[in-house]
Formats: sequence, C-alpha cells, structure tokens
Amino acid sequence: MSISLEDIKQAEILLRGKVTKTPLLESDEINDQLGGRVLFKAECLQKTGSFKIRGATNKLASLNEQDRKRGVVAFSSGNHAQGVALAAQLLGISAKILIPQDAPAIKIVNTRAYGAEVILYDRYREDRAKLANDLVPEEGRIMVSPYDDETIIAGQGTVGLELVEQLKSIQAAPDILLCPCGGGGLVSGVSTAILEYHPNLQIYAVEPDNFDDTRRSLLAEERLSNVAGHTSICDSIVTERPGEITFPINQKNLHGGISVSDDWVVKAMKTMFIRLRLVLEPGGAVGLAALLSGALSLTGRTAVVILSGGNIDLQQYIKLLHENK
Amino acid sequence: MSISLEDIKQAEILLRGKVTKTPLLESDEINDQLGGRVLFKAECLQKTGSFKIRGATNKLASLNEQDRKRGVVAFSSGNHAQGVALAAQLLGISAKILIPQDAPAIKIVNTRAYGAEVILYDRYREDRAKLANDLVPEEGRIMVSPYDDETIIAGQGTVGLELVEQLKSIQAAPDILLCPCGGGGLVSGVSTAILEYHPNLQIYAVEPDNFDDTRRSLLAEERLSNVAGHTSICDSIVTERPGEITFPINQKNLHGGISVSDDWVVKAMKTMFIRLRLVLEPGGAVGLAALLSGALSLTGRTAVVILSGGNIDLQQYIKLLHENK
Repeated sequence: MSISLEDIKQAEILLRGKVTKTPLLESDEINDQLGGRVLFKAECLQKTGSFKIRGATNKLASLNEQDRKRGVVAFSSGNHAQGVALAAQLLGISAKILIPQDAPAIKIVNTRAYGAEVILYDRYREDRAKLANDLVPEEGRIMVSPYDDETIIAGQGTVGLELVEQLKSIQAAPDILLCPCGGGGLVSGVSTAILEYHPNLQIYAVEPDNFDDTRRSLLAEERLSNVAGHTSICDSIVTERPGEITFPINQKNLHGGISVSDDWVVKAMKTMFIRLRLVLEPGGAVGLAALLSGALSLTGRTAVVILSGGNIDLQQYIKLLHENK
Repeated sequence: MSISLEDIKQAEILLRGKVTKTPLLESDEINDQLGGRVLFKAECLQKTGSFKIRGATNKLASLNEQDRKRGVVAFSSGNHAQGVALAAQLLGISAKILIPQDAPAIKIVNTRAYGAEVILYDRYREDRAKLANDLVPEEGRIMVSPYDDETIIAGQGTVGLELVEQLKSIQAAPDILLCPCGGGGLVSGVSTAILEYHPNLQIYAVEPDNFDDTRRSLLAEERLSNVAGHTSICDSIVTERPGEITFPINQKNLHGGISVSDDWVVKAMKTMFIRLRLVLEPGGAVGLAALLSGALSLTGRTAVVILSGGNIDLQQYIKLLHENK
C-alpha cells in the first residue's frame, strides 16, 4: 500500500478550483535572524484554515454514487472535521463527525456551520476509533480516515506539487523541508511529490515534545506509541502513533523527526504575527519552532516550512501570546 | 498632472521580483454572512506588511545616479517609512525618515532595521512637512512624498493590475471595490488601473470617522480638511486633507467615500482573525468594516476589498480584540 506521483497529479486535477492555491511567503527579517532563507507554504490561508480540505475533497469526490448516498463518518481533533464537513457539503453528502469535547470551539462551530452533524466525546475516557467504527455498521456510513488512506494522502500531497511549481518560479532549491506531523498524512504526501523533483531534499517531520512518535519510530524502525499522561497545546497533531499506511512512506522519504516544546511553538506563533502577519494555530507553527529553537541549523541553507493550519480560538491565542515573553 | 495605465504597466515591470504578488483570498463564511461575494486583496502579506513598498520602490528605482547619491527623506506614520527604508536599503540609498513618536513601535523598529535613520517628532506640536522640507535644502536630500507623486501613485497602482489578472483567472466581475484611503495614493493608482478593464466598477474610498476628508471633498468638489481634535485607531490613514495630485484622479475615478467607526474596524479585524487567519492593522481593515457596518450593501453583489496593511503592535492588537465583544 503506497502512493505515487501519478496519484497526486490526479488529485491535483480533481481539486482544481475547489481549493486555494496557497502562497509561498518569505520574511527578510526571519531570513536575517536565522542566517538562511525560509520559504513558508501558507496552508493556514487554505479554505477551512488548514490543508485537510485537500485530502477530504479528494476522498469524497472519489466515492461512487452509491457510497455517496451512504454518507460519511470521521473522527478528528477539528481540522480534518472541517475539511470533511465542507467537502461533504459541496458534494451533497451527509456527514457525521466525532470531535473531542475539549477541541477549540472554532473548529466545532465551523464543522457544524458546514452542515455536518457533530458528536462530541471525551478523549480521555472514550475510544474515538471504536465510537466511529460503531457508526459504520450501524448506519452504513463510509469511514473517512484522517490520514491512513491513500486517497487522503494523495490529496494532501498536492501541497507538494504546488511547492514544486512555486519553487521553480522563484528558482529556489531548498535544502530542507519541515512539516508538522500528527498521523503523518501531510508529510507522506508532500514528500512523495516533492522528492521526485528535489531528490536531495532533507525532509523532517516536526512534532510536539512527548508526542514525537514518528521521530522515535523512524529511529526504532517500527511504529511506537506515545506514553500516556502528557499534554500539548498543539491539539491538531497529538496522535497516539504513526499511521499504518503513512509510516512506511515516511520511513522511505524522511530524513528524520524533530520535537519542539510548547514554549518554542508560542515563540514561532508570535514571530508569524510580527513578521508575516499570519495567525497560526500551535500545531501549524511547529516547523518554524524547530528552526527558532536551534534544533536544526539554517545557516547558509534554504528551508521550506509548511504552515499547516491557523484555527485557534481568539481568547486562547491572546492568552498564549500575552503570557509568552 | 495625472497618471496613465501605461505608467502603471511600467511600474509593474520595474517591481517584478522585488515585491510580493499578494494573494486574492475569499471566505465562504463571510460571503454567507454578507449575502454576496467578497474577494480580499491581501496586501497585509506584502513585504514590509503594507502596499507602500510598491510606490517607494518605483520612486527610488526611478531616481538617476546623481539623485540616488543625494539620499532621500520622507515623513510617514510608519508604513511609507518602512517602504522607503527597505527600497533604499535594496538600492544602496541613504534614507532619513520622520515618524511621529506615537506611531506603533513595530513600524519604528522595522524602519530602523531596514537601515534608515529615524527622526521622531511630536505630531501634535510639530509640522512634519516643514520638518522634512527643512532637510531637503539642508542636506540636499530628495523628498519622497507618501502619496502626492505620480511615480508613487503608479507604483501603488500595480495592486490594480494584479487584481485585473487575478479576477480574470477566477472569472469574477466585481460590482464594487473598497479601498482604505489616507492621502489617496493607493485608491487613485488602483482605480486608474482597474477601471480600464472594469469600467463599470464602483470604487469607494473608505476612511475613519472624523478623518473622512476625501468623502466630504468628493461631495463638495473641492479639497476639504478634517476638523482638528479627533483621534482614531487607524493610524495609517489619518491624513489632514486629500492630496493635490491624488484628489483630481479620485474625483474622476471614484463613486464616493464611506466612513467607518473604530468599533466596526475592530469587528473587521476580529472577523479577519477568525475567518481568514490574517492579522490586520486598523487602517487595513476599514474596507471590510464598511461592509460589516451595512454602510454599503453587498446583497447579490461581488466586492473587492483591499487589505492595505497588517502592522500593529501585538499588545495593541490583543487589547483591541480583547475589549471588543
């Protein structure tokens, strides 16, 4: 089970006109500060505020007429929820989505606004996969996995194809790419696309401290789970373990993993506010956090940093940025 | 004294590769809320955080060798300052810039970071034009006006040419265009460009309440000044009266002026945070404020809203958005 460049090219054709071609942005000040060049792929400016609409649209548009009538079910910490809900709305498909009750309110409100039925659950006391799987036989709905699905991965991979074109137009040849990583759908898709054109690019999955399952799994060469009992502000990328389909792809494509503290994540969010005037959610800012923290040196090099999402409640944003000095 | 489409096309060639082609963004939620379609031209994502780099670069690159050696002087509430400072740095020209001491700190810090010499003055007790003009004979510097200069206006007009191309690519035909207006440089340039391709487009200058000199001047058919003693949070667009060169162009091109309260401006900034994940400065958000306030109805129509800048101090941003319910 894997995906090819051709799958991603097919997805790009299917997504044309349905998703935003997000800009590649740059800040002279950040370049000076880090001693290299950083090109930011602003998926926080994507429809629904994150890249997830790409995979969701590719998946739902690929369903046959009969499956569309069955409707879909998904579980998500919020960004995949919005992606599935909007894609379902545009295609006239019924959607039921399970979201943890402590997810950012904006993600829950938006998912409902896109017409999906939202079921809230307690992420510490209920098993979300079991809850969602129960709905498949009960109601006959199609399950839309947030990352462990080739069609989803191919959709997210279109970020990589856009990058290839945008890098070419400014004649930039990046040395490294940093991508936020939860289950690994985005980085597996993006890496599959971009390595075809930039074979020497070193690609890193970036995760929050204590949720660095992909980093540790890459080192151990097997899928390891995170130790329970930790928390992180990066709600969109705290997953239990690497995906079954995504992990072998990432093993083949990635140079390694990096983990970052919440404190560096907030510094990265603040830097994005000041330097690029972009609102990032914590999980969307981990790539820059890895550079700011010095976990990876940029000196004399060019990096692509994927800003994967910008959905955060205003009060939480104010609280985080106000408290961080 | 006026400018033509050809001047703007020349500016566009000169600016190629030096400024960001900013994206045209859209929010389904805002469209639903307002009952029409809004296309946002995100100049807050421009280098230096505002469109001002366009005019400044066009002006400074147009100077001959001898004038470049003389250096430049400018007065600005902060965005023009950053534009002139960065353009001067890139072209190796000495820049001295007068900024009011109560301007947002970020604008002063960035102007200095671009290598310009900053002179702070008291905007309520000193005449900035006189201060700057004194430096012209004293040091022989070239004065770079923030708006009353054809080369500056032509540079700002490139926003309009980009819009023409972007509107064509999505096959959109806007009915109205809302543009923030201080001295009128941006709206005079943009209107000159876009009306050549969309002759029926209704273009509005949007200003803060009590600083609606362009709105009132258009009605009176002569340049009127604002009444002293008022304040506004929209620091980037509080000017005393319409420009000498910009006003006749705006008289010819504009449908009218609209003024908005600070309260609606903050609501627009908040909407941009939630819906498009963009940081706007108050002056950059007045176009959306005009639609949200109902000053202009969008029902069944398509609007272009120019988001002219995003430079605001984090603490001020937090304060404004936190207090506005």
